[in-house]
Amino acid sequence: MINIRQLFDQDTWTFTYLVFDDESKESVLIDPVLEQINRDLSLVERLGLTLIGVLETHVHADHITAANEIRTRTSVKIYYGSKTGVKESDVLLNDGDRIQLGNYFITAIHTPGHTEGCTTYFIDNKLFTGDTLFIGGTGRTDFQGGSAEDTFESCRNKLFIYSDSTLVYPAHNYEGFTVSTVGEERSWNPNVGDGTTKQGFINNENKKDRPYPRRFDVSVPANMKCGSVS
Amino acid sequence: MINIRQLFDQDTWTFTYLVFDDESKESVLIDPVLEQINRDLSLVERLGLTLIGVLETHVHADHITAANEIRTRTSVKIYYGSKTGVKESDVLLNDGDRIQLGNYFITAIHTPGHTEGCTTYFIDNKLFTGDTLFIGGTGRTDFQGGSAEDTFESCRNKLFIYSDSTLVYPAHNYEGFTVSTVGEERSWNPNVGDGTTKQGFINNENKKDRPYPRRFDVSVPANMKCGSVS
Repeated sequence: MINIRQLFDQDTWTFTYLVFDDESKESVLIDPVLEQINRDLSLVERLGLTLIGVLETHVHADHITAANEIRTRTSVKIYYGSKTGVKESDVLLNDGDRIQLGNYFITAIHTPGHTEGCTTYFIDNKLFTGDTLFIGGTGRTDFQGGSAEDTFESCRNKLFIYSDSTLVYPAHNYEGFTVSTVGEERSWNPNVGDGTTKQGFINNENKKDRPYPRRFDVSVPANMKCGSVS
Repeated sequence: MINIRQLFDQDTWTFTYLVFDDESKESVLIDPVLEQINRDLSLVERLGLTLIGVLETHVHADHITAANEIRTRTSVKIYYGSKTGVKESDVLLNDGDRIQLGNYFITAIHTPGHTEGCTTYFIDNKLFTGDTLFIGGTGRTDFQGGSAEDTFESCRNKLFIYSDSTLVYPAHNYEGFTVSTVGEERSWNPNVGDGTTKQGFINNENKKDRPYPRRFDVSVPANMKCGSVS
Protein backbone atom coordinates (compact mmCIF):
# COMPACT_ATOMS: atom_id res chain seq x y z
CA MET A 1 0.00 0.00 0.00
CA ILE A 2 1.15 3.53 -0.71
CA ASN A 3 1.32 5.74 2.37
CA ILE A 4 2.28 9.34 2.72
CA ARG A 5 3.38 11.69 5.45
CA GLN A 6 2.71 15.35 4.94
CA LEU A 7 5.34 17.56 6.56
CA PHE A 8 5.18 21.31 7.06
CA ASP A 9 7.86 23.99 7.13
CA GLN A 10 6.49 26.88 9.14
CA ASP A 11 8.88 29.52 7.90
CA THR A 12 8.05 29.14 4.21
CA TRP A 13 4.67 27.40 4.49
CA THR A 14 6.03 24.57 2.38
CA PHE A 15 4.64 21.05 2.40
CA THR A 16 7.13 18.23 1.97
CA TYR A 17 5.80 14.73 1.29
CA LEU A 18 7.33 11.44 2.29
CA VAL A 19 5.75 8.84 0.00
CA PHE A 20 6.35 5.18 0.73
CA ASP A 21 5.33 1.68 -0.19
CA ASP A 22 4.80 -0.10 3.10
CA GLU A 23 5.64 -3.53 1.67
CA SER A 24 8.96 -2.86 -0.05
CA LYS A 25 9.69 0.04 2.36
CA GLU A 26 10.97 2.13 -0.55
CA SER A 27 10.33 5.85 -0.23
CA VAL A 28 10.82 9.20 -1.90
CA LEU A 29 10.77 12.74 -0.57
CA ILE A 30 8.94 15.36 -2.63
CA ASP A 31 10.15 18.96 -2.18
CA PRO A 32 12.25 18.61 0.98
CA VAL A 33 13.37 21.87 2.63
CA LEU A 34 17.04 22.29 3.55
CA GLU A 35 16.35 23.44 7.12
CA GLN A 36 14.18 20.37 7.78
CA ILE A 37 16.62 17.74 6.59
CA ASN A 38 17.25 16.22 10.00
CA ARG A 39 13.54 15.97 10.78
CA ASP A 40 12.81 14.34 7.44
CA LEU A 41 15.68 11.84 7.47
CA SER A 42 14.87 10.92 11.09
CA LEU A 43 11.33 10.11 10.04
CA VAL A 44 12.59 7.93 7.16
CA GLU A 45 14.71 6.05 9.69
CA ARG A 46 11.96 5.74 12.31
CA LEU A 47 9.62 4.23 9.74
CA GLY A 48 12.29 1.75 8.63
CA LEU A 49 12.25 3.06 5.07
CA THR A 50 14.84 3.10 2.32
CA LEU A 51 14.96 6.48 0.62
CA ILE A 52 15.47 6.02 -3.13
CA GLY A 53 14.91 9.50 -4.46
CA VAL A 54 14.23 13.19 -4.03
CA LEU A 55 11.60 14.51 -6.42
CA GLU A 56 11.32 18.22 -7.10
CA THR A 57 8.12 19.72 -8.46
CA HIS A 58 10.08 22.74 -9.73
CA VAL A 59 12.98 25.10 -9.09
CA HIS A 60 11.65 26.73 -5.94
CA ALA A 61 11.99 30.46 -5.38
CA ASP A 62 10.95 30.53 -1.72
CA HIS A 63 13.23 28.00 -0.06
CA ILE A 64 16.38 26.03 -0.75
CA THR A 65 15.85 22.35 -1.43
CA ALA A 66 17.48 19.71 0.74
CA ALA A 67 18.04 17.54 -2.36
CA ASN A 68 21.79 17.98 -2.72
CA GLU A 69 22.49 17.50 0.97
CA ILE A 70 20.29 14.39 1.08
CA ARG A 71 22.16 13.01 -1.95
CA THR A 72 25.46 13.68 -0.20
CA ARG A 73 24.34 11.85 2.93
CA THR A 74 22.41 8.95 1.43
CA SER A 75 23.36 8.51 -2.27
CA VAL A 76 19.77 8.82 -3.53
CA LYS A 77 18.94 10.11 -6.97
CA ILE A 78 17.52 13.58 -7.58
CA TYR A 79 14.68 13.98 -10.07
CA TYR A 80 13.63 17.20 -11.82
CA GLY A 81 11.43 17.89 -14.80
CA SER A 82 13.52 18.15 -17.96
CA LYS A 83 12.34 21.67 -18.74
CA THR A 84 13.89 22.96 -15.51
CA GLY A 85 17.34 22.66 -17.03
CA VAL A 86 18.80 21.56 -13.70
CA LYS A 87 21.97 19.93 -14.98
CA GLU A 88 23.08 18.53 -11.63
CA SER A 89 19.90 16.48 -11.38
CA ASP A 90 20.48 12.72 -11.71
CA VAL A 91 17.34 12.22 -13.77
CA LEU A 92 15.54 14.75 -15.94
CA LEU A 93 11.95 13.63 -16.35
CA ASN A 94 9.83 14.07 -19.44
CA ASP A 95 6.04 14.08 -19.46
CA GLY A 96 4.85 10.54 -18.74
CA ASP A 97 8.14 9.20 -17.40
CA ARG A 98 7.76 6.81 -14.48
CA ILE A 99 9.76 6.14 -11.34
CA GLN A 100 9.42 2.72 -9.72
CA LEU A 101 8.60 2.71 -6.00
CA GLY A 102 8.40 -0.87 -4.77
CA ASN A 103 5.56 -2.43 -6.75
CA TYR A 104 4.17 0.95 -7.78
CA PHE A 105 5.06 3.68 -10.21
CA ILE A 106 5.16 7.43 -9.79
CA THR A 107 4.24 9.21 -13.02
CA ALA A 108 5.76 12.57 -13.89
CA ILE A 109 3.31 14.98 -15.51
CA HIS A 110 4.73 18.08 -17.14
CA THR A 111 2.50 20.91 -15.87
CA PRO A 112 4.09 24.22 -16.89
CA GLY A 113 2.57 27.52 -15.83
CA HIS A 114 3.99 28.57 -12.47
CA THR A 115 7.38 27.87 -14.03
CA GLU A 116 8.29 26.40 -17.37
CA GLY A 117 9.65 23.23 -15.79
CA CYS A 118 6.91 22.41 -13.27
CA THR A 119 6.15 18.72 -12.78
CA THR A 120 3.22 17.13 -10.96
CA TYR A 121 3.74 13.65 -9.57
CA PHE A 122 0.95 11.07 -9.59
CA ILE A 123 0.81 7.86 -7.58
CA ASP A 124 -2.07 5.75 -6.31
CA ASN A 125 -4.96 8.26 -6.07
CA LYS A 126 -2.76 11.24 -5.27
CA LEU A 127 -1.47 14.21 -7.26
CA PHE A 128 1.43 16.20 -5.84
CA THR A 129 0.87 19.42 -7.69
CA GLY A 130 3.67 21.68 -6.44
CA ASP A 131 2.81 25.30 -7.24
CA THR A 132 0.77 24.47 -10.35
CA LEU A 133 -2.56 23.79 -8.62
CA PHE A 134 -3.21 25.00 -5.10
CA ILE A 135 -6.22 24.36 -2.89
CA GLY A 136 -8.50 27.10 -4.17
CA GLY A 137 -5.76 28.75 -6.19
CA THR A 138 -2.78 28.50 -8.52
CA GLY A 139 0.86 29.53 -8.29
CA ARG A 140 1.96 32.95 -9.55
CA THR A 141 3.00 33.05 -13.20
CA ASP A 142 5.25 36.10 -13.40
CA PHE A 143 8.76 34.62 -13.36
CA GLN A 144 10.89 31.60 -14.35
CA GLY A 145 9.11 31.13 -17.64
CA GLY A 146 5.72 31.30 -15.97
CA SER A 147 2.61 31.57 -18.12
CA ALA A 148 -1.02 32.00 -17.12
CA GLU A 149 -2.09 30.26 -20.30
CA ASP A 150 0.11 27.27 -19.49
CA THR A 151 -1.23 27.07 -15.92
CA PHE A 152 -4.79 27.04 -17.20
CA GLU A 153 -4.04 24.35 -19.76
CA SER A 154 -2.00 22.26 -17.33
CA CYS A 155 -4.81 22.27 -14.78
CA ARG A 156 -7.58 21.66 -17.26
CA ASN A 157 -5.88 19.19 -19.62
CA LYS A 158 -3.34 17.44 -17.42
CA LEU A 159 -4.81 17.42 -13.90
CA PHE A 160 -8.58 17.73 -14.14
CA ILE A 161 -8.64 14.59 -16.31
CA TYR A 162 -8.09 12.56 -13.13
CA SER A 163 -11.17 11.31 -11.29
CA ASP A 164 -12.96 13.70 -8.96
CA SER A 165 -11.88 11.72 -5.89
CA THR A 166 -8.15 12.04 -6.68
CA LEU A 167 -6.41 13.78 -3.80
CA VAL A 168 -4.61 17.06 -4.47
CA TYR A 169 -1.53 17.70 -2.34
CA PRO A 170 0.04 21.09 -3.11
CA ALA A 171 3.43 22.51 -2.14
CA HIS A 172 1.89 25.33 -0.11
CA ASN A 173 -1.24 26.49 1.59
CA TYR A 174 -1.62 29.69 3.52
CA GLU A 175 -5.05 29.17 5.10
CA GLY A 176 -4.50 25.94 7.00
CA PHE A 177 -5.92 23.49 4.47
CA THR A 178 -3.82 20.38 3.92
CA VAL A 179 -5.47 18.49 1.08
CA SER A 180 -8.21 18.78 -1.50
CA THR A 181 -9.56 16.71 -4.41
CA VAL A 182 -9.78 17.15 -8.16
CA GLY A 183 -13.57 17.32 -7.79
CA GLU A 184 -13.37 20.15 -5.30
CA GLU A 185 -10.92 22.12 -7.42
CA ARG A 186 -13.06 21.65 -10.50
CA SER A 187 -16.10 22.91 -8.58
CA TRP A 188 -14.57 25.64 -6.45
CA ASN A 189 -11.19 26.79 -7.71
CA PRO A 190 -11.73 30.48 -8.55
CA ASN A 191 -8.85 30.55 -11.06
CA VAL A 192 -9.16 27.38 -13.11
CA GLY A 193 -12.35 25.65 -11.92
CA ASP A 194 -15.15 24.65 -14.26
CA GLY A 195 -16.79 28.06 -14.06
CA THR A 196 -13.73 29.96 -15.31
CA THR A 197 -12.34 30.82 -18.73
CA LYS A 198 -8.76 30.86 -19.96
CA GLN A 199 -8.95 34.46 -21.10
CA GLY A 200 -10.48 35.57 -17.81
CA PHE A 201 -7.70 33.88 -15.88
CA ILE A 202 -5.00 35.38 -18.12
CA ASN A 203 -6.51 38.84 -17.68
CA ASN A 204 -6.60 38.46 -13.91
CA GLU A 205 -3.03 37.20 -13.75
CA ASN A 206 -1.81 40.10 -15.87
CA LYS A 207 -3.48 42.58 -13.50
CA LYS A 208 -1.77 41.22 -10.39
CA ASP A 209 1.05 43.22 -8.86
CA ARG A 210 2.91 40.77 -6.69
CA PRO A 211 5.83 41.37 -4.35
CA TYR A 212 9.26 40.11 -5.32
CA PRO A 213 9.79 36.79 -3.48
CA ARG A 214 11.95 37.53 -0.46
CA ARG A 215 14.32 34.61 -1.04
CA PHE A 216 14.31 34.59 -4.85
CA ASP A 217 17.90 35.70 -5.38
CA VAL A 218 19.28 33.11 -3.00
CA SER A 219 16.91 30.22 -3.65
CA VAL A 220 16.79 30.04 -7.42
CA PRO A 221 20.55 29.94 -8.10
CA ALA A 222 21.02 27.38 -5.30
CA ASN A 223 18.13 25.24 -6.50
CA MET A 224 19.44 25.28 -10.07
CA LYS A 225 22.30 23.30 -8.48
CA CYS A 226 19.91 20.99 -6.54
CA GLY A 227 20.21 23.19 -3.45
CA SER A 228 23.99 23.26 -3.30
CA VAL A 229 24.89 26.33 -1.26
CA SER A 230 28.68 26.04 -1.49
CA MET B 1 -16.08 5.39 4.33
CA ILE B 2 -14.75 7.69 7.01
CA ASN B 3 -12.73 10.59 5.67
CA ILE B 4 -10.99 13.38 7.48
CA ARG B 5 -9.63 16.80 6.70
CA GLN B 6 -6.85 18.08 8.88
CA LEU B 7 -6.94 21.87 9.30
CA PHE B 8 -4.24 24.03 10.80
CA ASP B 9 -4.39 27.30 12.73
CA GLN B 10 -1.06 29.02 12.28
CA ASP B 11 -1.31 31.39 15.20
CA THR B 12 -1.79 28.70 17.86
CA TRP B 13 -0.45 25.68 15.96
CA THR B 14 -3.76 23.93 16.53
CA PHE B 15 -5.07 21.12 14.38
CA THR B 16 -8.81 20.99 13.81
CA TYR B 17 -10.30 17.88 12.25
CA LEU B 18 -13.34 17.61 10.05
CA VAL B 19 -14.42 13.97 10.24
CA PHE B 20 -17.09 12.75 7.86
CA ASP B 21 -18.87 9.69 6.55
CA ASP B 22 -18.92 10.08 2.79
CA GLU B 23 -22.10 8.03 2.38
CA SER B 24 -24.43 9.71 4.88
CA LYS B 25 -22.51 13.00 4.58
CA GLU B 26 -22.70 13.46 8.35
CA SER B 27 -19.72 15.22 9.88
CA VAL B 28 -18.24 16.50 13.12
CA LEU B 29 -15.58 19.08 13.85
CA ILE B 30 -13.03 18.22 16.51
CA ASP B 31 -11.42 21.20 18.28
CA PRO B 32 -12.45 24.06 15.97
CA VAL B 33 -10.75 27.42 16.56
CA LEU B 34 -12.91 30.54 16.85
CA GLU B 35 -10.88 32.58 14.36
CA GLN B 36 -11.18 29.83 11.72
CA ILE B 37 -14.94 29.38 11.88
CA ASN B 38 -15.63 30.76 8.40
CA ARG B 39 -12.95 28.60 6.81
CA ASP B 40 -14.24 25.47 8.55
CA LEU B 41 -17.93 26.02 7.86
CA SER B 42 -17.17 26.87 4.22
CA LEU B 43 -15.37 23.56 3.87
CA VAL B 44 -18.34 21.71 5.38
CA GLU B 45 -20.55 23.39 2.80
CA ARG B 46 -18.19 22.79 -0.13
CA LEU B 47 -18.07 19.09 0.67
CA GLY B 48 -21.87 18.93 0.88
CA LEU B 49 -21.77 17.74 4.49
CA THR B 50 -24.21 18.04 7.37
CA LEU B 51 -22.46 19.05 10.56
CA ILE B 52 -23.96 17.18 13.50
CA GLY B 53 -21.57 18.01 16.31
CA VAL B 54 -18.56 19.78 17.71
CA LEU B 55 -16.32 17.51 19.78
CA GLU B 56 -13.83 19.01 22.21
CA THR B 57 -10.86 17.00 23.40
CA HIS B 58 -10.56 19.27 26.47
CA VAL B 59 -10.94 22.79 27.82
CA HIS B 60 -8.22 24.45 25.77
CA ALA B 61 -5.88 26.99 27.33
CA ASP B 62 -4.26 28.26 24.12
CA HIS B 63 -7.22 29.25 21.95
CA ILE B 64 -10.92 29.89 22.18
CA THR B 65 -13.12 27.19 20.70
CA ALA B 66 -15.55 27.97 17.91
CA ALA B 67 -18.06 25.52 19.47
CA ASN B 68 -20.56 28.03 20.83
CA GLU B 69 -20.55 30.17 17.70
CA ILE B 70 -21.01 27.09 15.49
CA ARG B 71 -23.92 25.97 17.68
CA THR B 72 -25.48 29.42 17.33
CA ARG B 73 -25.17 29.33 13.55
CA THR B 74 -26.03 25.69 12.85
CA SER B 75 -27.81 24.14 15.86
CA VAL B 76 -25.30 21.31 16.26
CA LYS B 77 -24.62 19.66 19.59
CA ILE B 78 -21.45 20.30 21.58
CA TYR B 79 -19.69 17.35 23.20
CA TYR B 80 -17.20 17.49 26.06
CA GLY B 81 -15.83 14.86 28.40
CA SER B 82 -17.88 14.74 31.61
CA LYS B 83 -14.86 15.46 33.82
CA THR B 84 -14.41 18.88 32.17
CA GLY B 85 -17.43 20.17 34.06
CA VAL B 86 -18.48 22.29 31.07
CA LYS B 87 -22.11 22.81 31.99
CA GLU B 88 -23.10 24.52 28.75
CA SER B 89 -22.10 21.44 26.76
CA ASP B 90 -25.07 19.62 25.20
CA VAL B 91 -23.60 16.21 25.93
CA LEU B 92 -21.10 15.26 28.62
CA LEU B 93 -19.36 12.08 27.58
CA ASN B 94 -18.23 9.32 29.88
CA ASP B 95 -15.51 6.84 29.06
CA GLY B 96 -16.80 4.50 26.37
CA ASP B 97 -19.76 6.63 25.29
CA ARG B 98 -20.42 6.60 21.57
CA ILE B 99 -21.59 9.19 19.05
CA GLN B 100 -23.24 7.97 15.87
CA LEU B 101 -21.84 9.37 12.61
CA GLY B 102 -23.76 7.92 9.70
CA ASN B 103 -23.19 4.17 9.88
CA TYR B 104 -20.19 4.57 12.17
CA PHE B 105 -19.56 5.37 15.80
CA ILE B 106 -17.08 7.69 17.43
CA THR B 107 -15.98 6.37 20.81
CA ALA B 108 -15.05 8.74 23.63
CA ILE B 109 -12.07 7.58 25.66
CA HIS B 110 -11.41 9.37 28.94
CA THR B 111 -7.67 10.08 28.87
CA PRO B 112 -6.86 12.40 31.79
CA GLY B 113 -3.34 13.75 32.29
CA HIS B 114 -2.94 17.01 30.40
CA THR B 115 -6.19 18.06 32.08
CA GLU B 116 -8.54 16.08 34.26
CA GLY B 117 -11.27 16.07 31.62
CA CYS B 118 -9.28 15.15 28.50
CA THR B 119 -11.05 12.92 26.00
CA THR B 120 -9.58 11.06 23.03
CA TYR B 121 -11.94 10.24 20.16
CA PHE B 122 -11.63 7.00 18.23
CA ILE B 123 -13.20 6.20 14.86
CA ASP B 124 -12.21 3.83 12.07
CA ASN B 125 -8.44 3.44 12.55
CA LYS B 126 -7.88 6.92 13.94
CA LEU B 127 -7.30 8.33 17.40
CA PHE B 128 -7.78 12.07 17.92
CA THR B 129 -5.64 12.48 20.99
CA GLY B 130 -5.91 16.19 21.78
CA ASP B 131 -3.08 17.18 24.13
CA THR B 132 -2.85 13.77 25.79
CA LEU B 133 -0.51 12.11 23.29
CA PHE B 134 1.54 14.18 20.87
CA ILE B 135 3.77 13.01 18.05
CA GLY B 136 6.94 12.34 20.02
CA GLY B 137 5.60 13.99 23.16
CA THR B 138 2.76 14.58 25.62
CA GLY B 139 0.87 17.65 26.79
CA ARG B 140 2.05 19.57 29.84
CA THR B 141 0.56 18.41 33.12
CA ASP B 142 0.91 21.42 35.38
CA PHE B 143 -2.58 22.96 35.33
CA GLN B 144 -6.33 22.20 35.06
CA GLY B 145 -6.07 19.06 37.14
CA GLY B 146 -3.16 17.80 35.10
CA SER B 147 -1.22 14.79 36.32
CA ALA B 148 1.90 13.15 34.90
CA GLU B 149 0.83 9.84 36.40
CA ASP B 150 -2.56 10.10 34.65
CA THR B 151 -0.94 10.97 31.31
CA PHE B 152 1.33 7.96 31.55
CA GLU B 153 -1.54 5.65 32.43
CA SER B 154 -3.86 7.12 29.80
CA CYS B 155 -1.27 6.59 27.06
CA ARG B 156 -0.22 3.15 28.19
CA ASN B 157 -3.59 1.70 29.22
CA LYS B 158 -6.09 3.56 27.06
CA LEU B 159 -4.26 4.41 23.80
CA PHE B 160 -1.40 1.98 23.33
CA ILE B 161 -3.89 -0.89 23.48
CA TYR B 162 -4.92 0.01 19.93
CA SER B 163 -3.11 -1.71 17.07
CA ASP B 164 0.26 -0.37 15.99
CA SER B 165 -1.14 0.85 12.67
CA THR B 166 -3.78 3.07 14.31
CA LEU B 167 -3.26 6.67 13.23
CA VAL B 168 -2.55 9.29 15.89
CA TYR B 169 -3.88 12.77 15.16
CA PRO B 170 -2.94 15.23 17.91
CA ALA B 171 -4.23 18.75 18.62
CA HIS B 172 -0.83 20.33 18.06
CA ASN B 173 2.57 19.78 16.58
CA TYR B 174 5.36 22.30 16.57
CA GLU B 175 7.85 20.57 14.25
CA GLY B 176 5.76 20.17 11.12
CA PHE B 177 4.60 16.59 11.60
CA THR B 178 0.93 15.99 10.89
CA VAL B 179 0.25 12.38 11.88
CA SER B 180 1.84 9.39 13.56
CA THR B 181 0.81 5.88 14.58
CA VAL B 182 0.41 4.01 17.84
CA GLY B 183 3.32 1.80 16.78
CA GLU B 184 5.61 4.78 16.25
CA GLU B 185 4.65 6.35 19.56
CA ARG B 186 5.21 3.08 21.39
CA SER B 187 8.65 2.77 19.79
CA TRP B 188 9.82 6.36 19.79
CA ASN B 189 7.86 8.56 22.19
CA PRO B 190 10.49 9.78 24.68
CA ASN B 191 7.90 10.38 27.42
CA VAL B 192 5.59 7.38 27.38
CA GLY B 193 7.01 4.97 24.79
CA ASP B 194 7.86 1.36 25.56
CA GLY B 195 11.34 2.24 26.82
CA THR B 196 10.10 4.64 29.51
CA THR B 197 8.91 4.22 33.11
CA LYS B 198 6.09 5.96 34.94
CA GLN B 199 8.35 7.18 37.72
CA GLY B 200 10.90 8.49 35.22
CA PHE B 201 8.21 10.43 33.37
CA ILE B 202 6.77 11.85 36.61
CA ASN B 203 10.23 12.95 37.72
CA ASN B 204 10.87 14.66 34.38
CA GLU B 205 7.51 16.41 34.40
CA ASN B 206 8.10 17.69 37.95
CA LYS B 207 11.45 19.15 36.92
CA LYS B 208 10.01 21.17 34.01
CA ASP B 209 9.66 24.91 34.42
CA ARG B 210 7.17 25.94 31.78
CA PRO B 211 5.98 29.41 30.79
CA TYR B 212 2.45 30.47 31.71
CA PRO B 213 0.30 29.99 28.57
CA ARG B 214 -0.10 33.38 26.94
CA ARG B 215 -3.86 33.05 26.44
CA PHE B 216 -4.71 31.03 29.56
CA ASP B 217 -6.67 33.73 31.39
CA VAL B 218 -8.85 34.46 28.39
CA SER B 219 -9.19 31.00 26.87
CA VAL B 220 -10.05 28.84 29.88
CA PRO B 221 -12.98 30.92 31.21
CA ALA B 222 -14.39 31.29 27.68
CA ASN B 223 -13.97 27.60 26.91
CA MET B 224 -15.68 26.60 30.16
CA LYS B 225 -18.68 28.24 28.46
CA CYS B 226 -18.07 26.42 25.12
CA GLY B 227 -16.16 29.43 23.79
CA SER B 228 -18.79 32.04 24.58
CA VAL B 229 -16.97 35.36 24.69
CA SER B 230 -19.95 37.56 25.58
